[in-house]
Formats: sequence, C-alpha cells, structure tokens
Amino acid sequence: MIEKLIDEIVKKDAPIVAGLDPQLSMIPEHIMNAAIQKYGETLEAAGEAILGFNIAIVDAIADLVPAVKPQIAMYERYGVPGLMAYESTVDYCHRKGLIVIADIKRGDIGSTSAAYADGHLGKVTVGSETIAPFDADFATVNPYLGSDGVKPFVDVAKENDKGLFILVKTSNPSSGEFQDKVFSDNAKSLYETVADMVNVWGADSMHGDYSDVGAVVGATYPEVGEKMRKVMKNSYILVPGYGAQGGKGEDLKAFFNKDGLGAIVNSSRGIIAAWQKEPYKDKFDAKHFADASRQAVLDMKEDINKNALGK
Amino acid sequence: MIEKLIDEIVKKDAPIVAGLDPQLSMIPEHIMNAAIQKYGETLEAAGEAILGFNIAIVDAIADLVPAVKPQIAMYERYGVPGLMAYESTVDYCHRKGLIVIADIKRGDIGSTSAAYADGHLGKVTVGSETIAPFDADFATVNPYLGSDGVKPFVDVAKENDKGLFILVKTSNPSSGEFQDKVFSDNAKSLYETVADMVNVWGADSMHGDYSDVGAVVGATYPEVGEKMRKVMKNSYILVPGYGAQGGKGEDLKAFFNKDGLGAIVNSSRGIIAAWQKEPYKDKFDAKHFADASRQAVLDMKEDINKNALGK
Repeated sequence: MIEKLIDEIVKKDAPIVAGLDPQLSMIPEHIMNAAIQKYGETLEAAGEAILGFNIAIVDAIADLVPAVKPQIAMYERYGVPGLMAYESTVDYCHRKGLIVIADIKRGDIGSTSAAYADGHLGKVTVGSETIAPFDADFATVNPYLGSDGVKPFVDVAKENDKGLFILVKTSNPSSGEFQDKVFSDNAKSLYETVADMVNVWGADSMHGDYSDVGAVVGATYPEVGEKMRKVMKNSYILVPGYGAQGGKGEDLKAFFNKDGLGAIVNSSRGIIAAWQKEPYKDKFDAKHFADASRQAVLDMKEDINKNALGK
Repeated sequence: MIEKLIDEIVKKDAPIVAGLDPQLSMIPEHIMNAAIQKYGETLEAAGEAILGFNIAIVDAIADLVPAVKPQIAMYERYGVPGLMAYESTVDYCHRKGLIVIADIKRGDIGSTSAAYADGHLGKVTVGSETIAPFDADFATVNPYLGSDGVKPFVDVAKENDKGLFILVKTSNPSSGEFQDKVFSDNAKSLYETVADMVNVWGADSMHGDYSDVGAVVGATYPEVGEKMRKVMKNSYILVPGYGAQGGKGEDLKAFFNKDGLGAIVNSSRGIIAAWQKEPYKDKFDAKHFADASRQAVLDMKEDINKNALGK
C-alpha cells in the first residue's frame, strides 16, 4: 500500500493529508439546520451534518491531495450514527480516488488487536461470506502493549495490502512525559526505543525503499523529526501538528529525505475549519466553506513544497 | 462511580467482572443460524448473534457479578452493526443493574481524547439536546500520549460521575517490552512511572478511600500486582488475564488489600466460552451455554474468595 501512497503523492505533487476531524462547531449553520430539520436534534442529525460537511470538502480538494485522515474519535463521539458517518466518509473518499488513513490509535493484547485490525483494515467471515467492514487503507497504532499488540496489525496489513503508522513521538505538548524519558539499559528514549521496533515490525513489509509500516512523529518536534528520519530509514513518517497545532513548513525540512519523499504532513482544523480562521474568514462565507478548504490546501501545498522541500 | 462499584462488589461478594468479548466461534450454532436466517450472511447477522449470545449470558450471571467489561474491539471488528450490538449490550447490562466497564483503551491528543471521553462516558450536544451516546460507567485509557491525553477523560469522568482504569501493566506476554524498561532519571520502569501519574491524575477524584481513576495491572504478573497495590494506594486495580490467559486465584492475593477490596478480576473467555472448555464442555451442551457461563462464574468466585482472599 505504501507504494500506492507514494505514487499519489508524486502524481499530485503534494506530500499532504487532509485530516477529516469534524466538530459540530466547524459546520456551517445551513448544513446543521438541514440535518436537524431531517432528523431532529439527534445523534443522527450530527452524523448527517458531519457527512454532508465532509463530502463538500472532499469534493473541493480531492484533485489536490493524495490522502485523507479521518480521526475516528470525532465520529465515535456521536455514537453509532457518528460511526455510520465515518464509514460513509471512508467509502466516499475511496470513490473519489483518495487513500484513507484511519486515525484510530488502537492497540491491545494480541487477539484483541487482531479484531481491531480485521475491522479496520481486513476482512471478517460471517457464514460463507467474507466482508471488509471499515476497509481503510492505513491505520495508526498505539505501541504501549509491545510487539504482540502490534504484530496482528502488521499481519492483517500484509494479507490485505494495507499499511500502518505506529505512534512514535506524538504532536501534543505532554508527549514527552513518557515518550522522551531515557531508559538506562539502551540510553535511548521511549520513542527511540519504539522507533527501533518500528524497523523490526516493518522489515518484512517492504515495497521498494519503504515499508508498509510507517511511523507518526509530530510536526511540533522538528529536531525529533530529523533524528527519526535517519533512524527509521524504511518508514514513511506521518506528521501531524501542522497548522493549528503550531507546525510550519520550514520546520518540516528534516522530516523529508533529499528526494522529497519519506513524509506526509497532516493538517486537520487548518483545512476543514479554514472558513472560520484567518486569513480565509474574510474572503469566504459559510456557504463557501469548502472553497476556503481548497484555498487552505493550495496554501499548505505551497508552504510545504517551497519551505520544506525547496521546490 | 468507584463507590458504586465497591458497593456492588461487597453486596454480591464477588470482586469479579465478566468480560463480554464475543467471537463468532464461541456462539452456538442455533444462535448463529437464526441470525443468518434473519439477516443473511452479513455484518448485521454477526451483530444480532453477538447480542443474542450476550443477553443469554447476562441473564444467567447478572445476580452474581457486579460488573461486565465489553471489549469494544470484538464489536468494532464487525463494523457499524457490531457497534450497534455493543451499544445494545451496554444498555441491556444497565437494565439488569450491572456496572459497565468499557474496555476501549483509547488515548489521543487533548481535544481528541475529549471526543472519545464525551462519546463513551459523557454527553454531546446537538442543537438544544444533550445526549449520552454510549454511556458506559468506566473506560480503560492508554497513557502513551501523557497527561494531556488522559486529563480530558478525567475531566469528563468527574463531570458525569464515571470512572477510568489507566493501562499500567498489561497482561500480554510482550507487555514488558516497553512497560518494564527502567528509566535512568527516576530509576523506575515505564509502568511504575505511569503508576505515579495515576496517583496524580486521580488525586481530585476521591470517594472515600478510592479514586475514580483506577489502573489496569495484568493477573499474569503477580509480583507487579503486589508492588502496584502499594504504590497506587487510592486506585482500584482492574486485573485482566485470569483464566484463559493463565492467571489463577492464588496468584491474585497481592492485588487486594487486607479488607478484600482494591481489585476486581476480569475473566472473558473463561466465562463466556465456558461451554466449549474443560471442565464444562461435557456437562453443558450448546443449548445450555449460558448455564455453563453461570457455573464458570460460581467457580471463579469461589477460587478468588478462597484462594486470593482467604474467605
């Protein structure tokens, strides 16, 4: 799957992923009101509004970005109707030719991780039928439980030509609380120790220069990105934290290899809530929120290509 | 919420939680066939079979156990229909007076953890309506992202009188890969360092002797249980790994305080798949699978009360 992602990044000249992390506060009134008119003030209305919002944005940016990253928490927040909107979003993005990175950050003991992997990346069997439930292309995985919590994801990804991004160094302010602490036996931090295991986990999933097992390293820690780019030579790095969380194009140079590959940068609020934010909010009204998202993607692409990749 | 859990544990004289982690291979043919007859070989049939299986087991054990712990992965594996079965299972258990521990192991950056916490323990607002989507009583939380990934769960739990169990030392074979490694600055392992933070996170959520912020420590590591019982004085310990994973009653002594409180032991496969396993499979046929589960709970209760608590 990683080679497909790289193909799309090169084709669209955009090492960018649009984070589909909708909050109701970002959704224009006309969409929210129409959903409430249809379903009342219910979880179903929330799901309908989220899906309508996503579809308009995806329509506006699908020719520009190789991939989207729905954050499943933003859907799960609204219960089953929210998760129906998640499922429909994944389907719609696939129909528009986009690669879908499911930001699920799951991780559990072996047999339980296998269940998550089946549901999100793989297939299940009911009677004689084989069905792919959520059918994303990549999933993010939490490594706290160690190899036997991660390997079922690696196996399911391999069987189904899918990929993973393992949490190494997350973008949030307190990520260092545990991740940066240094172990005495190997003189490496927790995140460096996880990074070494990412190399192990991904060794049998190579496609060309890269493995289907990638890693997450936050844009908010550029010095870590520089180090991790060298340590995990075969792993694509998914870089959250650009834009709303503070990361800028010029900070991202070191996440990429010299050929411009090796990283894909996510922006969520910066793209999907652009219509509410500077410098877009004066140019785009609520009816044109998706046009604001398109402009935000164009601006992000220019920033990354110019200031991170020197193009 | 922790005081309600303790009340129920004392009332039922059973520091036991039944893990509702259904796999289709555990479900008797007559239930699976009826579901397929109704829905075809679909995810809906899987959800229907899982729910029917759960209801029969819950009916058979609700008077014996204070709580159940559905592992959401086993539902998520079957996509949206699976999650509908999860939601209905939570509702049904509440109607039977059981406390529901949602084993979700979520954890993300702050605003995203807040979305998970809202969806699983809290409430959301749609228009002027406030709705509790999944509405469990406790949730398990993964600490890899640090305090700002955990605190939204603490806050939402506090606002809604709910509780948490933070992953400290998990029951799986490779849990030590990262969790047991010792940091150089504090000479403590990762799991001990997380345990210290559990004390911090839970300090403002006390009810009597215990906090609403508990911890997960696997039955498969009794020496860790002994240490953790002393370190996290105010935290109830949720103990997975009994039975199918290898933990036994006599190994669990040190997880409890002298008054018999302080821990609640989970068994999943050992209870719900009892009809397929020794010593039950010769006594109970597929039609009486729920009776086998009841007997397994009675036997587990005796083992824990006798061999762990010396009653």
